Amino acid sequence: MFITFEGIDRSGKSTQAILLHNYLSGIGYRTKLIREPGGTRVSEKIRKILLDKSCKPMDFLTEFLLFSASRKQLTEEVIKPCLNQGVIVICDRYFDSSTAYQGYGGKVDMKIISMVNKISSAGVKPDLTFLIDITYPESIKRKGLMSSSNDRIEDRRAGYFNKVIKGYRELAKVNSRIVKLNGLKPVNEIHNKIKLLITGKLKSLS
Amino acid sequence: MFITFEGIDRSGKSTQAILLHNYLSGIGYRTKLIREPGGTRVSEKIRKILLDKSCKPMDFLTEFLLFSASRKQLTEEVIKPCLNQGVIVICDRYFDSSTAYQGYGGKVDMKIISMVNKISSAGVKPDLTFLIDITYPESIKRKGLMSSSNDRIEDRRAGYFNKVIKGYRELAKVNSRIVKLNGLKPVNEIHNKIKLLITGKLKSLS
Repeated sequence: MFITFEGIDRSGKSTQAILLHNYLSGIGYRTKLIREPGGTRVSEKIRKILLDKSCKPMDFLTEFLLFSASRKQLTEEVIKPCLNQGVIVICDRYFDSSTAYQGYGGKVDMKIISMVNKISSAGVKPDLTFLIDITYPESIKRKGLMSSSNDRIEDRRAGYFNKVIKGYRELAKVNSRIVKLNGLKPVNEIHNKIKLLITGKLKSLS
Repeated sequence: MFITFEGIDRSGKSTQAILLHNYLSGIGYRTKLIREPGGTRVSEKIRKILLDKSCKPMDFLTEFLLFSASRKQLTEEVIKPCLNQGVIVICDRYFDSSTAYQGYGGKVDMKIISMVNKISSAGVKPDLTFLIDITYPESIKRKGLMSSSNDRIEDRRAGYFNKVIKGYRELAKVNSRIVKLNGLKPVNEIHNKIKLLITGKLKSLS
């Protein structure tokens, strides 16, 4: 089983991915928690370029191809071997991030996004995707509570992130595997909903 | 005018690119000499990953997407602006390298190669391509005369490079813009042939 988490920065998706990982491993499942971009030697090097603020200007198609290169390596080196061994893979971001950030946000042609997403994931599709939905002002409000500085992508403006958020919501509308959850709710309430949905999915698969 | 040089390592293509650049600028043309992968801040960082021997294993599609990301950035930042200003661009490797190295050599699906080559080059196609053709044993012989160590790609075996060479030759057969030149001939003889062909091309364009 392959589960992915999506959403903009500070939506709480990484927290939820960790909570789910702890929950599933706690009840005896073999699970693997990974994040994108990264997770392999090559992918981590690509991640550095993608987040490096000195790497400007970067064309949106260049950015998309870099994410895709990182994704293919992660899929071949980690995701496929884990799934083949019956491990539940939980991934913080996967190809929906590209559709939202470089497609809806960056205006890369959706036909290109869809075609490259297919090959960079080697046909591996999430069984279940949780979209933790928050607004851009909420993300900025939460940022005020943190001390970390922006990376290259976080440096973009409100207009960009609003397109990303809108894109995510549209993706959730047309893909039954994507479950949209209100990221404004308390962490534990979101976690409980995710647990419930996962339990149902695991039962349906077993 | 956009001119590219292709061939395996130590074929002499870089030498010929420099000689042509010197010749054309010497007779008054504005020219820009670049190489792939590289030529922009982002592309040089991608180059490092591609040639880094510690970046193993690297999936061939990952490799292809990295070359393509570097290419798109170089095309947008350097090639297109130069061509728009009437500068003759001479590039040491371009998308034919991907067709030969990751397509013929690495068995990435040719439909994918062709489609991504189109978008990573933003539709910019060389007007003229010189393939400096040598055999693999000749490349190895020449290597013996140099002190540099192999990069990640040079580390591959004879079987791989023979597929690349065969691929290049097939490309030259079906693309009239690719001129295959015997890389065993003396440097100056090859250079004179290239000068002759370029002069003809420049006349036909003016």
